[in-house]
Amino acid sequence: MNHNDSIPETLPVGEAALSTIAMPGDANPAGDIFGGWLLSQMDLAGSIPATERAQGRVATIAIEAIKFHRAVLVGDRVRCYAEVTRVGRTSLTVRIETWVSRLGVPGMMKVTEGVFTYVAIDGNRRPRPVDAQVPIDAQVPVDA
Amino acid sequence: MNHNDSIPETLPVGEAALSTIAMPGDANPAGDIFGGWLLSQMDLAGSIPATERAQGRVATIAIEAIKFHRAVLVGDRVRCYAEVTRVGRTSLTVRIETWVSRLGVPGMMKVTEGVFTYVAIDGNRRPRPVDAQVPIDAQVPVDA
Amino acid sequence: MNHNDSIPETLPVGEAALSTIAMPGDANPAGDIFGGWLLSQMDLAGSIPATERAQGRVATIAIEAIKFHRAVLVGDRVRCYAEVTRVGRTSLTVRIETWVSRLGVPGMMKVTEGVFTYVAIDGNRRPRPVDAQVPIDAQVPVDA
Amino acid sequence: MNHNDSIPETLPVGEAALSTIAMPGDANPAGDIFGGWLLSQMDLAGSIPATERAQGRVATIAIEAIKFHRAVLVGDRVRCYAEVTRVGRTSLTVRIETWVSRLGVPGMMKVTEGVFTYVAIDGNRRPRPVDAQVPIDAQVPVDA
Amino acid sequence: MNHNDSIPETLPVGEAALSTIAMPGDANPAGDIFGGWLLSQMDLAGSIPATERAQGRVATIAIEAIKFHRAVLVGDRVRCYAEVTRVGRTSLTVRIETWVSRLGVPGMMKVTEGVFTYVAIDGNRRPRPVDAQVPIDAQVPVDA
Amino acid sequence: MNHNDSIPETLPVGEAALSTIAMPGDANPAGDIFGGWLLSQMDLAGSIPATERAQGRVATIAIEAIKFHRAVLVGDRVRCYAEVTRVGRTSLTVRIETWVSRLGVPGMMKVTEGVFTYVAIDGNRRPRPVDAQVPIDAQVPVDA
Repeated sequence: MNHNDSIPETLPVGEAALSTIAMPGDANPAGDIFGGWLLSQMDLAGSIPATERAQGRVATIAIEAIKFHRAVLVGDRVRCYAEVTRVGRTSLTVRIETWVSRLGVPGMMKVTEGVFTYVAIDGNRRPRPVDAQVPIDAQVPVDA
Repeated sequence: MNHNDSIPETLPVGEAALSTIAMPGDANPAGDIFGGWLLSQMDLAGSIPATERAQGRVATIAIEAIKFHRAVLVGDRVRCYAEVTRVGRTSLTVRIETWVSRLGVPGMMKVTEGVFTYVAIDGNRRPRPVDAQVPIDAQVPVDA
Repeated sequence: MNHNDSIPETLPVGEAALSTIAMPGDANPAGDIFGGWLLSQMDLAGSIPATERAQGRVATIAIEAIKFHRAVLVGDRVRCYAEVTRVGRTSLTVRIETWVSRLGVPGMMKVTEGVFTYVAIDGNRRPRPVDAQVPIDAQVPVDA
Repeated sequence: MNHNDSIPETLPVGEAALSTIAMPGDANPAGDIFGGWLLSQMDLAGSIPATERAQGRVATIAIEAIKFHRAVLVGDRVRCYAEVTRVGRTSLTVRIETWVSRLGVPGMMKVTEGVFTYVAIDGNRRPRPVDAQVPIDAQVPVDA
Repeated sequence: MNHNDSIPETLPVGEAALSTIAMPGDANPAGDIFGGWLLSQMDLAGSIPATERAQGRVATIAIEAIKFHRAVLVGDRVRCYAEVTRVGRTSLTVRIETWVSRLGVPGMMKVTEGVFTYVAIDGNRRPRPVDAQVPIDAQVPVDA
Repeated sequence: MNHNDSIPETLPVGEAALSTIAMPGDANPAGDIFGGWLLSQMDLAGSIPATERAQGRVATIAIEAIKFHRAVLVGDRVRCYAEVTRVGRTSLTVRIETWVSRLGVPGMMKVTEGVFTYVAIDGNRRPRPVDAQVPIDAQVPVDA
């Protein structure tokens, strides 16, 4: 939808947390990419720097405003940029932007942006301090 | 995560817009249900009353705060309740709550809640008045 | 297919066990919704009241006649109604009907109906009496 | 479930219509293979000889009794055998059996059997005679 | 793509290791079947005789040249033939060919061919001799 | 599998073409990530620089040797690096490496590497010169 023509477009710095191609199996009944699929990609993307910063498992606990600026089409290259913007005692706030590039269209277009909050959790799903020492799960061997 | 033990739990009235079982294929790496899957279900659920009210295609344009109250587990029965709470000229605001029931646990538990905004769009993805007469798409025959 | 124009259409009472939107990823090569996807939804829907009545795990053991009355299209809202119609010592018979609503078509249309039989099973997949006391699985904590 | 220990096990002759491995993403919440996935495979398998015999598109219109003899496990090799047993003017009846082989278990085990009826349909989803000449769909080029 | 019109087409003998129908959810953005899906089917197909020959778990360790001769279309019947061509101490080499049949096209067409190498591994993912006695995993009961 | 302990590990320069998290739904029956899923990600990743260089649709026509160095685990962060290494008249050769990072393991580990060849194709799937002017497909509007 071209309901928002004047969004400032400043590409985030750094590498995208998540990067893929939107496929036909991700479409909504109208043939564009399903908004829920984009939300999934954003949630997954945000969990990456949150998990790395917390050095362990995190769970999504809140989302502040998300905006959808444009439709995403089948075949678009989709990149989610995610940056930890605040670290609380047990929580992490991550700003996430999704940008697409499309064959025949110069540059990249911002399609969504939002702020997700994750909480660091322990093995019993209880909040734990972000900076606590976490014993590495023995089921995740290094040289598997 | 049991990070929110005191949420008021008043089951929405009426039938759930969307209702299913959380399956193993919807899990995150820790084995609980992936937050992005829940977001997808909420987005789809909200589109149902929005589409019906607008009598035609809608697209998600914004999400206000979403809260995740509890983890959803594989096998949970998941219901998303969605109610149109405001109708603008071209947009519709939908309040969505997700509730689960779980074998061996009496009653239902609220797991997420949020407010989604959809815009009614025409065949070219341009916003259109919610109450405009929309010619029914000829590709969707009645007695197919 | 319009091979059955005169089926009596009496909507089941109560809430649908399962309710969703048919998506493009659920289509068959001709672009309509794949019959196997509908069968999956029916099987899942029937397991819901069976699991609740048996207060524990069930497995599908038999299906009596299923009829497919009409094609389901991408974008249809699909609801499966499921009602336990008979309880044996270890088995439960569930009548399931699938109804769709479609944008631009008033009312709902019945698309499938059938009778599924489930058996209550224990942790070793052995049949168990439906009304036996089943210890709740400790791996499914309440406030996860 | 070992609820049926004495089924006669005579492997169907000929090649399986459909043959694959049951994967973790096909599991039900208890970790065994989801019955609905098996029904999908059966429906797809049956459509293969029906489509070939009718030389064109078919749609599932009815299922007679299906039996599930044993659970299917993640990793099982699953084969669906399908044979057209009756040809009506516009309909085809197909007998389908599913057999699995499992590492460490000699031979194959029958897990389901059932009878599906398909109807030959034209481009408007209307029944057509099975033996009518059907112009090959121009959208399906040979040497694509 | 019709970039290879003169490949010799000699159908492999025996039954296909894997056989299915290419579905719309397996398509690439251009609407043909995604090459990655074909590679997945080949890898799975090759693992079948490798697992059977090694009587236990195997992992893919190398692929020699794969060729893609023709596009696969939605609705094609896809068969992967896989034959163990060499057995080393811990490794197995499997030649895999994919053939499709398509409504309205007589015969079958070879679409891919390649050589995959698998290694027999133990429960700790360490290579093990192909012909070692492997205790059958107790978690895979026969009459489940 | 730890069958290859001494591979030189030099991280490719530049941004990954594709980057995601390996999820439970991508697992093989043994619980590790399915090799076919990795091949799919590689094929998709390689198509990105090939499509950009050819400024239009490409199809995979050949794969030279692929090596799998290590198992990928559920939860791993997976990145595919893809670089066009040769441009022929109608074909493009792309070198692809997959690297994972894993919670609790410092650095990144190379898990696969391979060389894929794509051919630039026109709307009828016929090879076309890589540097031909391609009219942009009218179905892919810029500001959709």
